[in-house]
Amino acid sequence: MSGNSIGKCFKLTSFGESHGIAIGGIIEGCPAGLKLDFKAIQNCLDRRKPGQSELTSQRKEKDQVEFLSGFYEGITTGTPIGFLIKNKDHESKDYDHLKDTYRPSHADFTYQQKYGIRDHRGGGRASARETACRVVAGAIAFQLLKTININIYAYVSKIGDIELKTPYKAIDLQLIDKNNVRCPNDEVADLMSQKIIETANDGDTIGGEITGIAINVPAGWGEPVFDKLHAELGKAMLSINAVKSFKIGFENTDISSSKGSEVNDAFVNNEGTTSTNYSGGIQGGISNGNDIYFEVAFKPVATIMKDQESVDSKGNKMIVEGKGRHDACVVPRAVPIVEAMLSLVLADHYLRSKTAKL
Amino acid sequence: MSGNSIGKCFKLTSFGESHGIAIGGIIEGCPAGLKLDFKAIQNCLDRRKPGQSELTSQRKEKDQVEFLSGFYEGITTGTPIGFLIKNKDHESKDYDHLKDTYRPSHADFTYQQKYGIRDHRGGGRASARETACRVVAGAIAFQLLKTININIYAYVSKIGDIELKTPYKAIDLQLIDKNNVRCPNDEVADLMSQKIIETANDGDTIGGEITGIAINVPAGWGEPVFDKLHAELGKAMLSINAVKSFKIGFENTDISSSKGSEVNDAFVNNEGTTSTNYSGGIQGGISNGNDIYFEVAFKPVATIMKDQESVDSKGNKMIVEGKGRHDACVVPRAVPIVEAMLSLVLADHYLRSKTAKL
Amino acid sequence: MSGNSIGKCFKLTSFGESHGIAIGGIIEGCPAGLKLDFKAIQNCLDRRKPGQSELTSQRKEKDQVEFLSGFYEGITTGTPIGFLIKNKDHESKDYDHLKDTYRPSHADFTYQQKYGIRDHRGGGRASARETACRVVAGAIAFQLLKTININIYAYVSKIGDIELKTPYKAIDLQLIDKNNVRCPNDEVADLMSQKIIETANDGDTIGGEITGIAINVPAGWGEPVFDKLHAELGKAMLSINAVKSFKIGFENTDISSSKGSEVNDAFVNNEGTTSTNYSGGIQGGISNGNDIYFEVAFKPVATIMKDQESVDSKGNKMIVEGKGRHDACVVPRAVPIVEAMLSLVLADHYLRSKTAKL
Amino acid sequence: MSGNSIGKCFKLTSFGESHGIAIGGIIEGCPAGLKLDFKAIQNCLDRRKPGQSELTSQRKEKDQVEFLSGFYEGITTGTPIGFLIKNKDHESKDYDHLKDTYRPSHADFTYQQKYGIRDHRGGGRASARETACRVVAGAIAFQLLKTININIYAYVSKIGDIELKTPYKAIDLQLIDKNNVRCPNDEVADLMSQKIIETANDGDTIGGEITGIAINVPAGWGEPVFDKLHAELGKAMLSINAVKSFKIGFENTDISSSKGSEVNDAFVNNEGTTSTNYSGGIQGGISNGNDIYFEVAFKPVATIMKDQESVDSKGNKMIVEGKGRHDACVVPRAVPIVEAMLSLVLADHYLRSKTAKL
Repeated sequence: MSGNSIGKCFKLTSFGESHGIAIGGIIEGCPAGLKLDFKAIQNCLDRRKPGQSELTSQRKEKDQVEFLSGFYEGITTGTPIGFLIKNKDHESKDYDHLKDTYRPSHADFTYQQKYGIRDHRGGGRASARETACRVVAGAIAFQLLKTININIYAYVSKIGDIELKTPYKAIDLQLIDKNNVRCPNDEVADLMSQKIIETANDGDTIGGEITGIAINVPAGWGEPVFDKLHAELGKAMLSINAVKSFKIGFENTDISSSKGSEVNDAFVNNEGTTSTNYSGGIQGGISNGNDIYFEVAFKPVATIMKDQESVDSKGNKMIVEGKGRHDACVVPRAVPIVEAMLSLVLADHYLRSKTAKL
Repeated sequence: MSGNSIGKCFKLTSFGESHGIAIGGIIEGCPAGLKLDFKAIQNCLDRRKPGQSELTSQRKEKDQVEFLSGFYEGITTGTPIGFLIKNKDHESKDYDHLKDTYRPSHADFTYQQKYGIRDHRGGGRASARETACRVVAGAIAFQLLKTININIYAYVSKIGDIELKTPYKAIDLQLIDKNNVRCPNDEVADLMSQKIIETANDGDTIGGEITGIAINVPAGWGEPVFDKLHAELGKAMLSINAVKSFKIGFENTDISSSKGSEVNDAFVNNEGTTSTNYSGGIQGGISNGNDIYFEVAFKPVATIMKDQESVDSKGNKMIVEGKGRHDACVVPRAVPIVEAMLSLVLADHYLRSKTAKL
Repeated sequence: MSGNSIGKCFKLTSFGESHGIAIGGIIEGCPAGLKLDFKAIQNCLDRRKPGQSELTSQRKEKDQVEFLSGFYEGITTGTPIGFLIKNKDHESKDYDHLKDTYRPSHADFTYQQKYGIRDHRGGGRASARETACRVVAGAIAFQLLKTININIYAYVSKIGDIELKTPYKAIDLQLIDKNNVRCPNDEVADLMSQKIIETANDGDTIGGEITGIAINVPAGWGEPVFDKLHAELGKAMLSINAVKSFKIGFENTDISSSKGSEVNDAFVNNEGTTSTNYSGGIQGGISNGNDIYFEVAFKPVATIMKDQESVDSKGNKMIVEGKGRHDACVVPRAVPIVEAMLSLVLADHYLRSKTAKL
Repeated sequence: MSGNSIGKCFKLTSFGESHGIAIGGIIEGCPAGLKLDFKAIQNCLDRRKPGQSELTSQRKEKDQVEFLSGFYEGITTGTPIGFLIKNKDHESKDYDHLKDTYRPSHADFTYQQKYGIRDHRGGGRASARETACRVVAGAIAFQLLKTININIYAYVSKIGDIELKTPYKAIDLQLIDKNNVRCPNDEVADLMSQKIIETANDGDTIGGEITGIAINVPAGWGEPVFDKLHAELGKAMLSINAVKSFKIGFENTDISSSKGSEVNDAFVNNEGTTSTNYSGGIQGGISNGNDIYFEVAFKPVATIMKDQESVDSKGNKMIVEGKGRHDACVVPRAVPIVEAMLSLVLADHYLRSKTAKL
C-alpha cells in the first residue's frame, strides 16, 4: 500500500530519510546458498555516493552498508537480509530556512498535502539518498543473476544536447567506468563533462539519458498482462528520482512513425534469435532471449544555485535562495541506480519464472 | 505473481483468451454505495471494439459485458464485481496455419518458452482483446472518480509523422470523439486518417501516440518511493499491448536537454498552483493538484498484410502470409484503453490516500 | 485488501452472492501443462452441493461449473482459469421478510455496518454458497498436488457429542464417502446421522468437527515467520463459514497440559521420520515430511427453524421466524470444503517452495 | 512470498536471527500524525524480554529498540518506521554442539530441508527472539488504536492443568501484570507459578493458554471471505512460536456440541449489542462492536533439560543433552506477544475499513 517495496518474489523494502539516523532495508526472497561478495556490493555503493568526483555533490557520506541478518558464513540462508547505512554528514541546519518553504519542482508541497507533516531536512524521504538502498539490494540481485551468466550494464547516453549515438552493440561496454561521466566514449564523455561543469558554473542543472542493457536473459521471463517485463522495468525506472520517461527497444528509432514492415523482428531460428531487435528483447511482455535494452530520461535537478520565486506554507511569496550541496547533473551517479533497478526486476522475474510450468 | 491484476486497493484481475469461451474479470475494492451507470460502461466498450469504423479490424464482436455480482439494485455493495464478455466471432480456423509458427514481433515464441504450451488462436492471452476487461473496470473506476469531480481524457496526438502539436491546454477536449481517429482537431485528424488508410492499402501498419490527461486530481495522491504516481501510470500504460514508451510532463519539451532554471515549476500560492507544469502534476511521486498529463507511444501492429520470413517451432524457415483481420493502426481504438488505465491507477491511489494521515 | 483472494502463488479470487446471477472465480498461478480432470472437479462440487441427501438443505442447485479460460485441449496453459457457477434455484422472495432484519448470529448487521448497504437475499456474499468456488479451485489444486503423490483427506470426527476417537492412522480413509455423514466408521456415522435428524426434527442445528489430513507432503514447505504453514492452514480453515477453532497436531491430546518430555517428536532418521507426530507434520512453520493433520470445529448453523427474538434495522424488537431451507448440520457438506482449502494452501506453498534455494 | 510480513495496510516486515548482529523491522502504513510514546513501546519489550523473573530464561538481553526513521519530532510522518534491536548476550558457542543435530520438535531439520543451509545458533530465524520485533510494531499499532479508544488485553488462562475459569467479563483486567505469571487472579497465578517452577526443577517444560481481548472495536471491521477478521487473528496467533490452536468466542463452551438455539447471539438494539457473545464479537468475518475475545494454546517448549534421543544430519543416532538457557514455560512472556499480534491485526483492519464505502 505505502509503496516502500519493489518485487514480489525477490523483494526490497526500504526505509529512511535523508537526515534521519539511518536509511536501510530488508531484502526478502533471495534464495539460500548464494555466496555474497560484500566488496562488490560496497563498490556499487561507492559508484553512487556523493563526493566521488568534481562532477558530483560535495556531501561527504561514507555510505558504508552494514548487514544485519540473512546469511551465515557469507552465504545467504534464505531468511531476510536486513541492512542499514548510517547518515553521517547530514548538515540539517543547512535546511532550517526551508522548513516552511515549498521549493519549485520539489516534493515539499506534495508531502505536506499527503501527510500533513514532513521531515523537511534534505528532502526527507523524497531525497535521492534513498536510492542507496536500491543499490545495495540491486547488487545482491545482480550476484544472483550472475549465477546464470546474465550481465547488466548502464551508461550515460546523453547530457543536455550532447549525445552518444553509437548503437549499443557497437560500444565497448567495459569502458563505462573509465571516466567520471560513465559514458563509454572518451571524446563524448569529455564534451558531457564540460557541459556539466559549465552548467554548474552557471548555478544551473541539466538533464540527461541513461541506456540500460541486460545480456543473456533467458527467454520466458515476464508475465503476460499487467506485469509485462517492460512494464515492470518502466515502473522501476520511473520510480528513480528525476526520471520522467522510459522507452523500451527501438534504438535510434522513432516508435510512432515506424511501420510494421520496417520494425518487425524476424526470427532466424527456433531459439529466439531475431535478425533485428526493435522489440528490445521482450515480446508480449516476456523476454525472448535477445538483449534487453531501454532508455531512461532524467530531468534536471530541481535544486539550482540561483534564486527562485516561490511561496511558503502560508502562501507568502518568497525567494528560494540558491544554496546547499547538490549535483549540477545527477545522471552519472544514476548509472549504478539504473543497473540496480534493472537487476532487481530481473531477479524478481527469474524467481517468478520458476513456477510457470510443471 | 502471475501478473493478472492491477491495483492494490481498487483492483482488477482479468482472465480470458482471444478465442476461448469468454474473457472477463473481477473488480475488487470498489467502495459500496456507488450508483453504476451501466450504459456508460457499455459505451466505453463500444469505443474500443473492433468493426466500429473503416479504420479498424472487421472482426465483429458485440463486446456485450455481463455483470454477475457486486451490486444490488444498481448500487455497488462493496463485494467483488464479477463480469464477463463472451467471445462470439472467433474464427479460430483462421489461425490453424499459425499453430507452429513464430510470427515476427508477436508473442508466439515467448509464450511457448515460458509455458511450454500456448493457445495459438488469435494470440490467446497475448491478444489485445484482453484490454476490453480493462475498459470495463476503468469505466467503473472513472465513475468513482467522477464523484469527486475528476475528469479523464485521452486523444491521439500522433499517427506516423502526422502530429498534433497544440498544447493540450489550448485544445477543446470535447472534440475528441468527433472523428474516427479521436484526434481533437479535424484537419489533423483527416491527415491521420489518410495516413492510416494509405498504410492499410499498402498492407502495412503504423504506430502513433496518445496523450492522457487527468484534471482535478487532488494534491496528495501517490506514494513516495517505488509506487510513485507516475511510475504506476507508466507501468499501467506500458502494460497495454504495443506500448513502447511513456513520458510524464514536459509537453513539447526535450527532458534531457532542459535546464533546471527553465523547467522548475514555481508555486504561485500555497494550494499548489504552479506557473508552469513541466512536472505533469506530480512531484516526488505525489500529485500536486495541477493537471496530470503524459504521452504514450505505440509501435505499429505486428500483423501486416505482407508476407514475412520467419521460422516454425521446429526451426524450419517459412513465410508468414499476410492474412487475417487486423487494424492497420490500433491507436484510435486504444484511446479508451488509455483512459481506462489512467482511471484504474487514480481510483487505486484515491483509496490508498485515505489512510495516509490520522 | 478486500479479502477475496487466497494464496500468493497459486491463488483463487472469488466473486458472487448467493442470489445474484452467478458465483465464480479466477485461479491464477496454476502451472502450465497440468491435464485437468473436469469430471473430478464436478464430483467435488457434487459432494458439497445442497440436496444430496436427507441430511442437507433441499435447495436444488445443479452447481454446474463452467470453465471459461486458462486451458487448451484440456491442459492448463499457465494463464488464469476463469470459471462460474450460475445460481438457479434462488428463491429470493423467501428472503423479503428479512430485508430489514438483523438475524441472530448472522452477518446482516455487520455487512450493513461495514458497507452501508447489502444484498440481503440468502445472505448475499456471506452465504456459504461462496464455498463452491473454493471447491472448484481446491479440486484443481489437488490435481496439481497429485502429480507429486500428495493425498488429501477430511472426515467428520464429531457431531454434537458423538465423537470418533480412533486415531486417524488406524482409520481406513477410503471409507469416508461410504455414508452421508462422511465419518469413516459406519457405527459412529449412524449415531451422528441420528443426532442430525433428531436435531432437525427439533427445528434446531448442531455443530461438529472435521479432521483434515495431508499425506506425502515433502519436507521444506512453509515459511518461517508469519506465513508458517499451520498459520496459513489455520487462516484458510477459519475463513470457512461457521468455523470457530483450529488445532494442528496433538491428536487426542490436550496441548496446554502436556509436557515437553511427553510430546517432543524424536527423529529416528535424517529423512525427517519421527517416532511420534504431535507436531502434526510441521515444525517451525515448515513441513517435516510426516503427515499433516488438524482439527476444525464448526459452530451450529445460525438459521434455525424456531422463532427467535431480534431487532430490525430501525431498532424495533421483532421475531425472526424459523423458515427457509437450511441444513441442521453443515459439517458433512463441509468435508469437501476443508479438503479444498487444504489443497489450496498446499498448492500455494508447493509453488512458493520452488524459490527457496539456488 | 517469503512470509516475513504481516498486514496489508498497517504492515510489519521483520528480519533477524537469534544470534546475528541484530533483529529489526520496518513498519509501513502507520498514518502520519501519530505522537509516539517511545517509553510505552520499550515497556512492552521489557514485558517480553528474557531474564525478567525467576520464571523465565536467564539470557540477558537489554532488548533496547533503536528507531531509525519514520517520525519527526516524535510524530509519525507516514514514511516507514525502521527499527532494530541489537543482539548482545548471544553465547553462540553454547550451540556448537548442535550444529549438525536435529533436535526433537525443533525447526533444525525443516530449515535444513527448505534452505539447504541454516544458522543453527540459537535456532536462527526460528527463535522466538524474532517476536521482539512484533512487540515493537504491535505497541505502535496499539497507540494507533488507542486514538479511537480501543483497548487490548491478554492474560494467562491456563498453565498445565491449572485453569482460570472465571469468564473474562468478571475479571479485573488491571490485575494482569500484578504477578509474574500474568494471570489476573493471584491465587490461580500462585498455583501456576508453582507448576512452572516444579516443571523447571524437573528439567521439563509445560504448555498453557492465553486469552486475548479487544474492547471497543467498532462494528464493520474485517473482510467477508478469506480475510475474515477471526481468520486473520487466527493466522496471526498461530504464527507465534509454539502456538498450536486458536478458538474465537464460545468462552467455556464446547463449539461442536452446542446447538443453534443455545448459542445464537440475539441483537437487543440496532447498534449491534447482543444479549450473549458466543460469536466473540465477529459475525461473517466482520466485527459487530461487541468484545472480541479468543483463546490461544501453546505447546510446551521443545528444549528440555533432559537428555533426548535424536539423529544428526548424517542420520547417526545421538543424544541431545539437556543444556542451555530456556524457559520452562513461555506462556507468561507470550502475553505481550499476543497483545502485539492482536493490535497489528486490528490496526490493519482499521485502515482497511476506511475504503469500504463512499
